[in-house]
This record gives sequence, C-alpha cells and structure tokens, in this order.
Amino acid sequence: MKTNEVISRVLAEHEEITEIYWTACGGSLIDLYPSHYMVNAESAKTSSGWYTAKEFTVTPPKRLGKHSLVIVCSHSGNTQEAMDAAVLAYEKGAAVVTLTDKAGSKVDDPRFITWVYPWGDHVPTAEVPLGICPTLAAELIKAQEGFPKYDALTDGLKKMDGIIENAKNKVNAELSEKFADRCQENEFFYILGSGAAFSQTYGFAICSLMEMQRQNCCYLHSAEYFHGPFECTEKGIFYFLQMSSSQSRVMDERALSFLKAHTDRLMVLDAMEYGMGDVDASVRAYLEPALFYAMNVELRAARGKRFNHSPEIRRYMGIENY
Amino acid sequence: MKTNEVISRVLAEHEEITEIYWTACGGSLIDLYPSHYMVNAESAKTSSGWYTAKEFTVTPPKRLGKHSLVIVCSHSGNTQEAMDAAVLAYEKGAAVVTLTDKAGSKVDDPRFITWVYPWGDHVPTAEVPLGICPTLAAELIKAQEGFPKYDALTDGLKKMDGIIENAKNKVNAELSEKFADRCQENEFFYILGSGAAFSQTYGFAICSLMEMQRQNCCYLHSAEYFHGPFECTEKGIFYFLQMSSSQSRVMDERALSFLKAHTDRLMVLDAMEYGMGDVDASVRAYLEPALFYAMNVELRAARGKRFNHSPEIRRYMGIENY
Repeated sequence: MKTNEVISRVLAEHEEITEIYWTACGGSLIDLYPSHYMVNAESAKTSSGWYTAKEFTVTPPKRLGKHSLVIVCSHSGNTQEAMDAAVLAYEKGAAVVTLTDKAGSKVDDPRFITWVYPWGDHVPTAEVPLGICPTLAAELIKAQEGFPKYDALTDGLKKMDGIIENAKNKVNAELSEKFADRCQENEFFYILGSGAAFSQTYGFAICSLMEMQRQNCCYLHSAEYFHGPFECTEKGIFYFLQMSSSQSRVMDERALSFLKAHTDRLMVLDAMEYGMGDVDASVRAYLEPALFYAMNVELRAARGKRFNHSPEIRRYMGIENY
Repeated sequence: MKTNEVISRVLAEHEEITEIYWTACGGSLIDLYPSHYMVNAESAKTSSGWYTAKEFTVTPPKRLGKHSLVIVCSHSGNTQEAMDAAVLAYEKGAAVVTLTDKAGSKVDDPRFITWVYPWGDHVPTAEVPLGICPTLAAELIKAQEGFPKYDALTDGLKKMDGIIENAKNKVNAELSEKFADRCQENEFFYILGSGAAFSQTYGFAICSLMEMQRQNCCYLHSAEYFHGPFECTEKGIFYFLQMSSSQSRVMDERALSFLKAHTDRLMVLDAMEYGMGDVDASVRAYLEPALFYAMNVELRAARGKRFNHSPEIRRYMGIENY
C-alpha cells in the first residue's frame, strides 16, 4: 500500500477532508501524536484532533462526518476501544484508515482502508506508524493545498534509520547504565519533554516504564514545568529531560537551565547530540519522536536487565479480565 | 461585561469564527480545557484547539487568522508566555479575548477584548474563568449555529455555587483527613480522571500538589490507565480517583473496579455523591470541573495543615529568575 494511493482514494470518495482525527490507545495513540501536531501546524484547510479511543466514542467530535478522515491504530488489531472508534467513525460517514500489525484482526475490516504494517528490530521507520502517519498527513496536505515541506519530510524519513542505528550505540555507551543506576536510586522520578516529542515523554512514562518495568514516574511538559511542577525540584529528585531538536527546543533549554541549578540528579537525552541535526530543521519535530522511541526502548532494556525484569513481562495486560 | 456582547462584537468584526484556540499556562490553562472540550463536542462549525501558551507561539496553528477566536487567560495578567500568545494571535488577525484578575496588567491591552474577573472564596462560579469560558463558548455556538443545550448550561451554572458549598462541607467531613493521612503514608501517588474533568486531574497534580505542597504525584487518564499504567498498581500504592458525573463516568467506573481489586490504598471523589446529579446530564461534563477544583482546594488545604505547609508558600515561583 502507498500513502498517496490511500489519500487519493479518500479524496475520491469524500471530495474534501476538513478535519482529521487520530485515535488509538496507549502506545498506538502515542505514535499518532506527531502527525496530529503536524496537521495543525502545517494545514490551513484541515483541523486535527487526537483522542484516546474511548474518549472518541464517549464524546465524539460534533463535526465527525463525510469530510472527516479518521486514522485508527491498533497494533494487535483487536483493541476493542479502537475498533469501536473505527466503527463509529464509519457509521458517521467518515473515511476510516486502520493501521495494524495483524492481518485478519478486528480492525482489518472491509468497511475501512486497512494498512497492515510489519514490526521488529530492523523494520524501517517509514514502514511503521511513526513513519506512515506523517507521510499520510503530508500526502493529504499536498493533495489539498500544497505542502512545501513534502520533500524535506520524505528526505528526513529516509535518514531516520541510520540516525537511530548510530544513536542506539551511543545511548548504550553513554546513558543506559547510568539510567539503570538512577532507577535503583529513585523509586519515582520525572520525565520532561515538549512539542511533538512530548508524546514520547508520555510514552516513556506509561509504556516503557509503568507498563514494562513497573517503574513509578510522571511525565511533565517542559513549558508547563514552570507553572507548578518545578516547586518539587530539589537535590535527590531525579529528572530525565528529553531535549528536542525542533523549534520546541527552546522550552527544553529553559527547563535544562533550571534543572542544572536545582537538582543533582539530572539526565539529558538531547536529540541534537543523537543525529537529528542531519534532518532539515523544518521537519525535525515530526520525525524525532521515532528517535526518542528507539532510545526509550534501549533505556528500558537496560533497566530491565539491571532489575531482572524483562520488558515482556505483564501481570495484568492480556492476562486478567478488566 | 456580558458574554453575549463579547461574542456579538467578535462576530461583527470577524464575520464568522471557524476555529477557537484556548491558550494559557498552568492553572489558567486548566480552567480553559472544559470549554475546549465542549466546543469540539457541540459545534459543527468551529473546531477547537488547546495549547500551553509557549507551544502556541513556538508552533502556532496554521489556520490562525481572521476567522479565529483566541481566548487567553492570565490570572496575574503578566505571564509573558500568555501575553506573547495574545500578541501573536492579534498580529495574525484573530479576535483576542484576554481574561485576567488584574486590571491594568499586561494582557489588559486595547488590542484585545479584556475581561477582568473577580477572585476569592465567595465569588460565584459564573464570574470566574471556569464559568465565563463555557458561557462564551455557548454564546458562540448559539449565535452561529444554535445551541439546544444553552438553557441547560446556564441553569446548571446557577446551581454550581450551592453544589460547591455543600460539597465543601462533605469533603471535609469525609475525605480531607484521610487524604492527609494518605499523603503522610505515600511519598508518591497517582490521580486518575477522564473527560473534561481530566483537566482537574492534571490541575490537582501540578498546581495543588506539586506546586503548592511539593507533593510528588502523577496524573493519569482513566481510560489510558488500562493501556500501560495499571501494571504499577499493587498493594501499598495510593490512587486517588476523580469519578465524573458525565458521559465519561464509564471510564472512571472501569478504573474503579480494577483499583478496588488491586490496591488497598484507594480514595474516590465521586461527583455524583457531591451534588452534580442536580445538573442536567447533558452539560455536567462542562461544569463539574468547577466542583473538582473546589474539592482540590479543600484537600490541599487539609494536607497543608497536616504538613504545616501553607498552600501559599513558594520557593521558586515569583521568587527566583527562570
């Protein structure tokens, strides 16, 4: 399947798309955020909304209808909330694209355009949701109103696999063991980030750490940090700061400066030191979440090894009924 | 100033409003969320965006222009990020309404329509941002496309002060001391909520607890809880659950059921037990955040008394340069 063919089909059937909604749960929801952020930043025609799937079905947007495009992602393909959101959108007349790793799953349904993506250590970024979705958004904007950053985005996407491969080695050489140390010293800590990458701040917290490591922590927005949360900062409290390579970096830099002066437990993962400078500045925001995700995977693996707690272990998810 | 006069003036000068953006920082940002949520749920004409002010200026929405209405709130009136957002919006041609408690502050500027609101223990809900903003949104929807829930909303708003007054007594009789106990037993805990009230879940965490009590905690969405965070739940971990009275309640109920079975430290603040049943079900989501806010104030006061840490104390905010 090709992204431009998906958008051509959507526009042929729905004439124009005036709003796009991205909806999923947990890790899949996180992967949709950069594209939501991109549409609002780059489109003069299409507004974008981003919803955890249950919120979408409980309180759907009033504008949901024929001229809406709804992108639903379910890695397993069988997440009930995601399926319910897709069905609701279809019934309201929207174009529905479902992304899943599993052919033949619930969301692989003839009512939707279903994109089955591969998954695994060496699958290119362009072939997973963090690459597919910005490209879908770029094709939509290009088709409806023109998108001057289209070539920069596709060029940047090609560079991401090399950047990530190098960054993995660097993060393991420089940060992974220290991160595991910090997790041993701190029962709880804060993770900061901003911009489109804030999705990975949230994801690092709720997926990599809370879910896969039972590590208590909290995610904070680097700008919002100064409007409340910074009062908690003091020696002995660990902060992990994700520094963006995009225009949102200014928010992370402000947090960095304050944190350096107010805690002795700070760890910084700076996307500019991990290769994002090779990507055109105008599109870094939309692509760097893939870098942060890959680094989060390395860091959680290091913690898992230290604590003898494999990131594959669950005690409730998919085990209990809830 | 009257909300219908504000909207009449905006529409006279800008013909139509196709998008509304709510932007502020910290506590003020939190107060704008229910109205953002309401516009997306109730308007077929106007889309809504909600931004911490620095994100708004760093990555403004592409659609920001003549047909945009931007609502900026700064309690002190001098928050630089909020002022920058208001100026940017004005320069892009948008209608700008600023809300502040302080006449003569930066955001009280002739380029904007400035609404100076009173503040204090017995100021009616209708006169503070949590009441003004849903009314502004209701007037906009009514003027442009009709709003069948208009009367239910204004009627509900009138009931909020009585509901809150009774709820204060009840929360202090039933929850405040237990909450202070829990804070003594737990260095860190989780707060859950959903729907428009999720803004107060976030606000309880970052303003009432992190900022005013230096209490480490984390805010979680009740639906997202099942897509990662619930793996942390076990005996000895404290969870504070805000139960909505609105359509989003179903998400909180699911969390309640799981939490009851998996932790021995659970505290529930159920809006239905605190009077929200008196408000029409169709508009509870938009008004109950005012109830949760008032309860959060009582709970933080009880914690402050127990820890001898007044909620007025700051060590950084407004004291250091940052």
